[in-house]
Amino acid sequence: MLSHPSTQRIAVIDLGSNTARMVVISTVPGYAYNLSDEIREVVRLREGMSPRGLSAEATERAFFTLRLFKDYCDSAGVDEIIATATSAVRDAYNGALFVEQVQEEIGLLLQVLDGEQEAYYGTLGALNEVLVSNGFVVDIGGGSAQISEVEDRRYQRGSSVPLGALALTEKFVGSDPIKKSDYSAVQQEIDRRLDSIDWLKEAAVEGKELVGLGGTIRNLARMQAMREDYPLNTLHGYVLTRSALAESIDLLVTQPLADRKSLPGLNSDRADIILPGAMAMATIMDQLQKDSLTISINGLREGLFFERFWDHLSYPVAGDVRRFSVLNMARVYNYEKKHANHVRFLADRLFEQLLPLHGYDLDDLSLLDAAAILHDLGSIIDYYDHHKHSQMLITNRGLAGYQPRETALIALLARYHRKGKPGLEPYDSLMEESDELRLMRLAAMLRMAEFLERGRNGNVDDVTVSWDETTLRLTVVADEYPAVELWEAEKNASKLIEKAFGKELVLESTAAPAPWVAASF
Amino acid sequence: MLSHPSTQRIAVIDLGSNTARMVVISTVPGYAYNLSDEIREVVRLREGMSPRGLSAEATERAFFTLRLFKDYCDSAGVDEIIATATSAVRDAYNGALFVEQVQEEIGLLLQVLDGEQEAYYGTLGALNEVLVSNGFVVDIGGGSAQISEVEDRRYQRGSSVPLGALALTEKFVGSDPIKKSDYSAVQQEIDRRLDSIDWLKEAAVEGKELVGLGGTIRNLARMQAMREDYPLNTLHGYVLTRSALAESIDLLVTQPLADRKSLPGLNSDRADIILPGAMAMATIMDQLQKDSLTISINGLREGLFFERFWDHLSYPVAGDVRRFSVLNMARVYNYEKKHANHVRFLADRLFEQLLPLHGYDLDDLSLLDAAAILHDLGSIIDYYDHHKHSQMLITNRGLAGYQPRETALIALLARYHRKGKPGLEPYDSLMEESDELRLMRLAAMLRMAEFLERGRNGNVDDVTVSWDETTLRLTVVADEYPAVELWEAEKNASKLIEKAFGKELVLESTAAPAPWVAASF
Repeated sequence: MLSHPSTQRIAVIDLGSNTARMVVISTVPGYAYNLSDEIREVVRLREGMSPRGLSAEATERAFFTLRLFKDYCDSAGVDEIIATATSAVRDAYNGALFVEQVQEEIGLLLQVLDGEQEAYYGTLGALNEVLVSNGFVVDIGGGSAQISEVEDRRYQRGSSVPLGALALTEKFVGSDPIKKSDYSAVQQEIDRRLDSIDWLKEAAVEGKELVGLGGTIRNLARMQAMREDYPLNTLHGYVLTRSALAESIDLLVTQPLADRKSLPGLNSDRADIILPGAMAMATIMDQLQKDSLTISINGLREGLFFERFWDHLSYPVAGDVRRFSVLNMARVYNYEKKHANHVRFLADRLFEQLLPLHGYDLDDLSLLDAAAILHDLGSIIDYYDHHKHSQMLITNRGLAGYQPRETALIALLARYHRKGKPGLEPYDSLMEESDELRLMRLAAMLRMAEFLERGRNGNVDDVTVSWDETTLRLTVVADEYPAVELWEAEKNASKLIEKAFGKELVLESTAAPAPWVAASF
Repeated sequence: MLSHPSTQRIAVIDLGSNTARMVVISTVPGYAYNLSDEIREVVRLREGMSPRGLSAEATERAFFTLRLFKDYCDSAGVDEIIATATSAVRDAYNGALFVEQVQEEIGLLLQVLDGEQEAYYGTLGALNEVLVSNGFVVDIGGGSAQISEVEDRRYQRGSSVPLGALALTEKFVGSDPIKKSDYSAVQQEIDRRLDSIDWLKEAAVEGKELVGLGGTIRNLARMQAMREDYPLNTLHGYVLTRSALAESIDLLVTQPLADRKSLPGLNSDRADIILPGAMAMATIMDQLQKDSLTISINGLREGLFFERFWDHLSYPVAGDVRRFSVLNMARVYNYEKKHANHVRFLADRLFEQLLPLHGYDLDDLSLLDAAAILHDLGSIIDYYDHHKHSQMLITNRGLAGYQPRETALIALLARYHRKGKPGLEPYDSLMEESDELRLMRLAAMLRMAEFLERGRNGNVDDVTVSWDETTLRLTVVADEYPAVELWEAEKNASKLIEKAFGKELVLESTAAPAPWVAASF
């Protein structure tokens, strides 16, 4: 719920081979964005397509749905519509006529993406979410699949091949469970089509990363996540492994449709078509010799959106995806900017000065930073237990660019920013051995920073740190004696910092105490 | 997080016998309020009190804490401070001097409440939360207990007696677990003090309600709730029974302090003093011949706040506590007022016209109304699964004036407002036999209303209902053919309404279809 006065609503419509989708995003370009509505209709535009083009029935269904979308936009006051069509329309003999009629009769300008554009926009979506620098982005859709190459976080080149899950199923699968001969036919087609991408083999050198997007791949990831009891609600940064993919393929090959429909994690309306998509993904991984890929939740629609959102940048990708994702979440949830920034400043100051004691690196600092910005978000739900609400908000929505373990650590830092004994539950399965101590130490710094900013008004200018064998001295710099901050920090943050660094805490202020404080101790 | 431009921050400070508390409330008086901060310090102001008054040490601790509170208010930009002191200060020989010094040295004006004022403000808090019309409000504190009588939802009279949990413990309990003789001494003191309230016996006629507030009573309720696996996070409207209270007293009498500290639901820092408070409550219930009481979460501080919040009313209590509580939650979570009101209007129209088929009453209508206003609140967390987030927000915060069963039904209506098969889990234990059907029918009406307002712009002016043996006809009134609404309602709401009323649905519009719609069907 963006409360910024210049919030616009942008609709992105994507008319695919199987599904037509519209998302409505509330946004202030360059500032923040938030999904505010979504309509999805199964149009089956490719159904009955012939050399003469899209069938009359499919065209009618598409017109009906696009009019519905346009009607919604008019009535709900959408400010801007970005509408595209992909493989079905571009492959159809009468595609151009279809687009013309849509514009004339509905007043909707459909941009027909060619295969490379489709690859480009999917990659743009992924680059705004995943930290991939050099590697490949694979998007498996209903009609086609796109493979793109990324260099230095830019789209380099891409190809579209007719390896969509629905297209392969319709063409080659006539048995349930799949017969050996159908399976081989699918596999041969996949091999043949991948061979046709001339640049792919030369580009496949070691050390490159692999990213996957689109409903098929996301669903395969969810199947793995369900089997693993994955503890987060979001698939941001989730890693799909080749071995888990093989396991899913085994299940999809051996079970009949009725059983496949109830496979944990699999959408029942994909159960009939997902296998060829999974096989295509597996083959691509084998060809690129990758044993895992990172999921991007963003795809084509998000890429189209980001082109608009980052219109003013030289290249429409956030310079630092992680920082921007944190900021976007903070802005969407109306964070108290000054307080959050001041807590981050004080936490960072503790982190950098305590470096010789903890030895953590910039990645760890980025966890602390993110948690400092996000620690109070849960107040939007309720002041009581707001630390727990913050944790929920972070793991529910997830953060772009962070690995699941990192997202979980940020959520736990928010969880323990004011009280409680830091522990890795319920995310233990994601954690490394050193994370228990890491969480305690980062939580100690965040908690100290939070209580040194208890008045929520920047009373404490700075904190300097020194120590000896047994004692940790924090000297607070302030114009006037910060009585609230010192008292609250002593009461609520001292024990944890003593435990985290194994020293006794001395907390003092450069400003002399007010007489009444001196009298009271 | 109130985003209203005239939001003020009001601090309410309450210097009790044991604890000093400050709550900071963000508010637009008469419009909405939301707790935004809280500081709590154990001051033990009564400790060491003698005929010469408050002890020097206790005075110093109180000064330190009040200064801290005042410092916080200054630094955090609180607009208004309401500060009160209760039994310790009013009983102390040097109480007036203490107040004078606080004003001079700290600049904080402490209003010392006499016993009746304390009873009055606690009652005011309770009246703004519980639907009690005629009955009694009991508040058990640390130093004193207040009993008030309510007539026609107004405070009638009240008395304060020195039956606070801490005061009784300090005076009469020297054993652990409590010895028979100590127990009898406490009981005798309770009987004697209650006898001293001259109006109590005459007022105790049948049919009157009983409400309890304050930390002691809330904690006793939580003990019962934990034993019952109570499924809500909030104690709004919770009913504490005399038999559960007896069970808790048994546990408190027989177990030593170390074990009491880990009794489920009991705050460990109350484990040493709660028994005499529980005995006082039990005795009051027996004298009034009540076998249960309703918990009010609101108490003294909230009463003081509401006097300010409802300053412009003839009596500072909301005319309809339930409606206002719903509205306050909606406002705090920045609801889309026009959309919510229109959904409520359409849902109400369905409810009233379908009355002969369902036969529900005004209480049921009030559930539907509340759910219509609150159904989209979860969007503040995320568009995805916002129906589930709405459910969580409602059960997390709770609603004043509604019974737990009703709050759970409102939450479930929000949960099922757009999809899913309505079911009573996880709140089955609160429900009545007829609630499964009730939930399905109310959810069907809400869902139909929601999709008839899918464009979120009031496109549908009205809906009229008629039926015969087999068919339910909904005729939608609109200026222009509401294509989006009809399509979406047909797709998403028709099945549930057919199931709920056992008839086939015919959905049509007074406005003739656009030619393109006719062509498509």
